[in-house]
Amino acid sequence: MFKKILIANRGEIAVRIVRTCAEMGILSVAIFTDPDRFSLHVKRADEAHFIGDDALAGYLDPRRIVDLAREAGCDAIHPGYGFLSENDEFARICHQAGIAFIGPASEVIAGMGNKTHARASMIKAGVPVTPGSEGNLANKQEALTLAEEIGYPIMLKATSGGGGRGIRRCDSADQLDQAWDRVISEATKAFGSADVFMEKCVVDPLHIEVQILADSHGNVIHLFERDCSIQRRNQKLIEVAPSPQLTPEQRTYVGEQAVKAARAVGYENAGTVEFLVRDNEVYFMEMNTRVQVEHTITEEITGVDIVREQIRIAAGMKLTYRQEDIMLHGFAMQFRINAEDPKNDFLPTFGRITRYYAPGGPGVRVDTAIYTGYDIPPYFDSMCLKLVVWAMTWDDVLERGIRALNDMRVQGVKTTAPYYQEILRHPEFRARRFNTGFVPAHPELLNYSEKRHPEGVALAIAAAIAAHAGL
Amino acid sequence: MFKKILIANRGEIAVRIVRTCAEMGILSVAIFTDPDRFSLHVKRADEAHFIGDDALAGYLDPRRIVDLAREAGCDAIHPGYGFLSENDEFARICHQAGIAFIGPASEVIAGMGNKTHARASMIKAGVPVTPGSEGNLANKQEALTLAEEIGYPIMLKATSGGGGRGIRRCDSADQLDQAWDRVISEATKAFGSADVFMEKCVVDPLHIEVQILADSHGNVIHLFERDCSIQRRNQKLIEVAPSPQLTPEQRTYVGEQAVKAARAVGYENAGTVEFLVRDNEVYFMEMNTRVQVEHTITEEITGVDIVREQIRIAAGMKLTYRQEDIMLHGFAMQFRINAEDPKNDFLPTFGRITRYYAPGGPGVRVDTAIYTGYDIPPYFDSMCLKLVVWAMTWDDVLERGIRALNDMRVQGVKTTAPYYQEILRHPEFRARRFNTGFVPAHPELLNYSEKRHPEGVALAIAAAIAAHAGL
Repeated sequence: MFKKILIANRGEIAVRIVRTCAEMGILSVAIFTDPDRFSLHVKRADEAHFIGDDALAGYLDPRRIVDLAREAGCDAIHPGYGFLSENDEFARICHQAGIAFIGPASEVIAGMGNKTHARASMIKAGVPVTPGSEGNLANKQEALTLAEEIGYPIMLKATSGGGGRGIRRCDSADQLDQAWDRVISEATKAFGSADVFMEKCVVDPLHIEVQILADSHGNVIHLFERDCSIQRRNQKLIEVAPSPQLTPEQRTYVGEQAVKAARAVGYENAGTVEFLVRDNEVYFMEMNTRVQVEHTITEEITGVDIVREQIRIAAGMKLTYRQEDIMLHGFAMQFRINAEDPKNDFLPTFGRITRYYAPGGPGVRVDTAIYTGYDIPPYFDSMCLKLVVWAMTWDDVLERGIRALNDMRVQGVKTTAPYYQEILRHPEFRARRFNTGFVPAHPELLNYSEKRHPEGVALAIAAAIAAHAGL
Repeated sequence: MFKKILIANRGEIAVRIVRTCAEMGILSVAIFTDPDRFSLHVKRADEAHFIGDDALAGYLDPRRIVDLAREAGCDAIHPGYGFLSENDEFARICHQAGIAFIGPASEVIAGMGNKTHARASMIKAGVPVTPGSEGNLANKQEALTLAEEIGYPIMLKATSGGGGRGIRRCDSADQLDQAWDRVISEATKAFGSADVFMEKCVVDPLHIEVQILADSHGNVIHLFERDCSIQRRNQKLIEVAPSPQLTPEQRTYVGEQAVKAARAVGYENAGTVEFLVRDNEVYFMEMNTRVQVEHTITEEITGVDIVREQIRIAAGMKLTYRQEDIMLHGFAMQFRINAEDPKNDFLPTFGRITRYYAPGGPGVRVDTAIYTGYDIPPYFDSMCLKLVVWAMTWDDVLERGIRALNDMRVQGVKTTAPYYQEILRHPEFRARRFNTGFVPAHPELLNYSEKRHPEGVALAIAAAIAAHAGL
């Protein structure tokens, strides 16, 4: 087993990895740039190294990180999610330096990162994909012709894109004609490649993703699925495991397809196979070759520590579990508490957390790096806390979610928490009927009252007066 | 179902009950005395009522509380643990006022609260008890004669005692001769009754207790057992569920005996049947007719919300679960974080919490009413936080416990947290070999280093210097 792991990330996922390292008796090494010098991952790791004044550059510099890992005596690097986690060059540099990369092989990252390559692999493996282009589109004319053939709406997608970016929906030939140059230009800027491909647009599908684990001994298992249909502009907001909308047959089917997909590409480590589901049709969308933000809810319903399995796999060990050991246990739901103002088009609201109090009690888990007095820096993404609730049934998890959101205090910045309470109270959501069209279809859920916690100072003063007046 | 519940308690258990009320759509009413005017249970309940300047009197005044419940329009009262929770008169007054008491019938509380009566009920029901007196002891001479018969050591116990108080061990006739008058006097003062009885002292047993649930429709189930052998002077410190020391046969046996005990006395609501286990012998010790501090770990391994079941039962509903629905899932461990200085004979350390930060991540649950800036008042018990960890295996739960204790920050007062880390590291504890003699047998575990968290200010400054020096 590894002795010391460098965590090439920051914030809550770095803290998450520190925790599992501690439980495994492995030393953890944090890295931080200037805005992160008071970050919790720096405080909680066994060791922390400064990697530059620029907020982002240090976290995105493969060579610098690998050099630092070597100097610090690390035998492995965990990339977390985002940053370099799906950078095949980073994985390769680690390997060359004799440091284990906690993730799949460089070639597999590259193969799944290239969306047309991934599609081709899935077609070959017999995993269902949406109708679309065989590979990259040669030019606009080919795109227009193909779109007529498969029928609008279609999606233009950057081949090297991911995480919901580099995607454009076109509902007509006119729209495609106009979008073409812009998508090419965006893809070039954002992902360094002008390659784009086309897929039929599955309108308002369920976003279903299956967590898989694969070791270097040929064992591949799945940990059931997550339902991430509650999204806004392709960014997930609330995730549920298992999906309350799949039939047992669909559950079995997507699990099997995910394992087949992972086997087909020689996958190793933890990964997620994402599917679109609509009208009992299932289509492969993409594979994420890293731990995901929402891995927490799968941990809650299966009891498996996914980060621990990642580390064990990278160290050459066998999976702790066989498929038949994995049992579904209740429902879990994750709320991404973003420092954003939902009423103001979800504008990020960076600044100081004047008061943070973690919710607690039965079925509540919190993964965060914030604390009272912490300044949310403007350089990174706006997610500041993951609130995870578990309960035995769907109805109970809804009520627990509302309660835990009420219980929590994140003050000083506006967050998405009150908006999520509205979603939890919506009859369609409660009735297990929601797809990726839910958020845009319900703008009225933004009309919540801002004043949710009347206690605070006012109630404390009232209580003090009452107490001294002897009422 | 009830519309509004008064919680006749304070601190973490009051917060715990508020949470379940919120999840059930029931309004919660808190009560508070002067030192509690800034308490979290006051802030979190839907409504809070002041019940007097004296720290304790209000919480111990049945008539006042019932009157208040009536005035506030409550249809039920949850007594929590401690205070009036095992006061049969309180249950009777509630009943007379037409307010549901969330607990068993007054007569059952009285019957189990009287230890000789409880013993007699168990003997009649065929539940094994320790050898001892048939009922109360008439005088010292009878005590000395009986002790010779059953053999030393013996325990002298106050018939109306409980919670580990009113108990004296005697290893010889001399000791019994000396202890007699003192125990009588203590029992009279503490419990208002001079009645005492005798039991054979089971030396260094396991303390095993079974959680049961019984509804008013004749359904009685158990939720498996807890192992509370880590005690100091009869006060539990660390509890584990299920016991890592029982064989499957013993587990089945104690579960059956507990259900038999509950049925024998016509028990309703949640309760705990406590047993001593030694050398494969099981002896009934007592039954606690209320929710217990350590109910949390049973919730973690079964997924059952015990407070919710209590409320449902009191409302006349059937149990949510049948016995066959209750599955064991992993191991859970609770640490009672007491504001005490273990190195100074566990002296209470009341005062201001200068910094509190909840531990988080996978398998961590916190039940507490403290917050940064909270003053722990000197009038109540010293437990300020319950840290609960869950993991799939015994080995994993040990490591998670150490990690979560490290993760947590409770500053401003000394706590028992560092002492618990020493217990978790002890080879005998890790090897699942511990009984009620463990704590007194290992005074060396108090020799821990006080300096566990070097980060704080020092590391923050170091990080800032490093950042600005561009190191």
